[in-house]
Amino acid sequence: MTGQFYVPTKIVTGTGCVSAQGGLMAPLGTHALVVTGARSANACGALDHVTAALTANGQSFTVFDGALPNPTVESVYGGVALAGECGADFVVAIGGGSPMDTAKAIALVAAQGIPKEALFSGKYGDRALPLVCIPTTSGTGSEVTQYSILTNDTAKTKTSLATPLLFPRIAYLDGAYTAGLPHRVTVNTAIDAFSHCAEGMLSNLSGEISDALAKEGLRRISDCFDALAEDSLTPKQRDSLMLASTLGGMVIAVTGTTAAHAMGYSLTYFRHIEHGRANGLLLVAFLKFCEGTIPERIAELLTACGCSTPDELGAALDRLLGEKESLTDQEADHFASLAIRTGNIAKCLVRPTEADLRAMLRQSL
Amino acid sequence: MTGQFYVPTKIVTGTGCVSAQGGLMAPLGTHALVVTGARSANACGALDHVTAALTANGQSFTVFDGALPNPTVESVYGGVALAGECGADFVVAIGGGSPMDTAKAIALVAAQGIPKEALFSGKYGDRALPLVCIPTTSGTGSEVTQYSILTNDTAKTKTSLATPLLFPRIAYLDGAYTAGLPHRVTVNTAIDAFSHCAEGMLSNLSGEISDALAKEGLRRISDCFDALAEDSLTPKQRDSLMLASTLGGMVIAVTGTTAAHAMGYSLTYFRHIEHGRANGLLLVAFLKFCEGTIPERIAELLTACGCSTPDELGAALDRLLGEKESLTDQEADHFASLAIRTGNIAKCLVRPTEADLRAMLRQSL
Repeated sequence: MTGQFYVPTKIVTGTGCVSAQGGLMAPLGTHALVVTGARSANACGALDHVTAALTANGQSFTVFDGALPNPTVESVYGGVALAGECGADFVVAIGGGSPMDTAKAIALVAAQGIPKEALFSGKYGDRALPLVCIPTTSGTGSEVTQYSILTNDTAKTKTSLATPLLFPRIAYLDGAYTAGLPHRVTVNTAIDAFSHCAEGMLSNLSGEISDALAKEGLRRISDCFDALAEDSLTPKQRDSLMLASTLGGMVIAVTGTTAAHAMGYSLTYFRHIEHGRANGLLLVAFLKFCEGTIPERIAELLTACGCSTPDELGAALDRLLGEKESLTDQEADHFASLAIRTGNIAKCLVRPTEADLRAMLRQSL
Repeated sequence: MTGQFYVPTKIVTGTGCVSAQGGLMAPLGTHALVVTGARSANACGALDHVTAALTANGQSFTVFDGALPNPTVESVYGGVALAGECGADFVVAIGGGSPMDTAKAIALVAAQGIPKEALFSGKYGDRALPLVCIPTTSGTGSEVTQYSILTNDTAKTKTSLATPLLFPRIAYLDGAYTAGLPHRVTVNTAIDAFSHCAEGMLSNLSGEISDALAKEGLRRISDCFDALAEDSLTPKQRDSLMLASTLGGMVIAVTGTTAAHAMGYSLTYFRHIEHGRANGLLLVAFLKFCEGTIPERIAELLTACGCSTPDELGAALDRLLGEKESLTDQEADHFASLAIRTGNIAKCLVRPTEADLRAMLRQSL
């Protein structure tokens, strides 16, 4: 059994890092397509920092603010059209997972002219526009992964584009950008990052380096559980969560995600439960499922969180999740039947059957 | 204050990984210059694994076994000449730090035609031959750094070539290659890796990611102190030390090395004390020097090693170092006067004066 670790993104950290280190973008091109959602890139100040840095570098830019939550194929191709019109030769994403994943797909499609019907084929050429990611939530980790996760209406789920071409060249991490997020978003994204670290340790692609990063991420997020519940995060804790989110991204760049994400996609697609929350609802059931087969590994994971049992972790997560949604048995059966077909399940260290997934769904919601 | 983390090398781990994952080298070129020292690449089996993998990929190769310990500029240019003659378009290094550093310099010079007198200029073009590194000792970390450390007879010390072009594309880590090393080499290289992790935590370029990796490296090496002293390493411990060495490399790729290396270079150049041992002789004095100013950081470092005081760590290292060399006062003065001029000193979180370095040298040997 051999493992791999590969994260070629330059990670720049610290308050004010876009302004202080904006010169790193200078070699990437002459005209940037700056991809954002509708509001937050502007509200948090990141857009101003980026445009000032690009201007200081002598680079021009066009803003595409059409990235949608749970990004659609249509929104990607809207950005590709604009990139063509303005002659963009690199892409800068500002936002949570949705703007970053939209920007990554735009960078790939714009460089290769991939038709819509071939977008999910997995067969790509050898180039993408250079990409910079500036997360404004601490959750997705997309700033350091080779994935772009889009809504796939044909398959009725989320589907990953996955190619090393999608690794951003640079990720700027400034926790201050998360200060104005709604509490609900802060909590759900933190749970997403937590899930990346935990699920990564339960992947058959995990290795010693990804484990070390995962444990550091779990430790940092667990240390913030109380402040997350009380909505009292300090700037230092926001920086720590931002870093933990990137650590989670580095982990899943190596390991992929596993069963919680596989099931969670249906909760998001059919029940409109936010992505991070969906994972959090399902995670502890997955840990308990694994515990019978790999108790030492689960103990190691729990220790990193400062917990001694899955139920202790479950109680901490429940405090963040609040009142839970419920599923009908029919929904649980349906979602299990979709999850079992995903690549995420094939990566599980302890591989669940469809019946196991059904049981986890019923137990969780 | 902003920080950076950048390690773009693909790291492949596990027993037999060169054979299992040799196909990763296929896109790198058509003819490899395989750089080795005189014996160990062959003795440990790595050379056979590499040549078989290249042959399976349809790639031809030429072996250059002229890499010298403490590599000289002449040996680098010998390899460059051979690379030109055989038409090598990529380089594979097998060995400890010396063959890897020789190969890295060859890859840079062969691609750019740098004249000898400009080798240490720090001014390079934008290309190097693609490079693969296969360490056969667990110490240098060169397989994941942008440095090539050569003997500089003009400056009477070791001097680093440093450019992102020198990051290897692939590092294969197989702890089994270290099984036949002399005990002395195993110990000295482990101390070198330990020193990379510890010195990296005491660099003003350290950050949260490099710290997490450094602590994991310190923990793994400390866990092996007894087995190192007793020459009783298990295969699993050898894998762990190999990984720790790479973690140390990832750390110094970000942080550089600091005061122990700055002083250690003179011990190696003038007194022929092996590189890792030289660092180990000086490390605890540097920790004690820092402790007055940054006690919490030193405590964090010691905790990762399972120690509570610098003297406790010193005792563990002393067991590995055995009888120590001594220096004359004149030597200590001379070496301090050379060390203070190095870039390593400018990177220290607590910056020593020449008098401080003199005191550390006198205290240590």
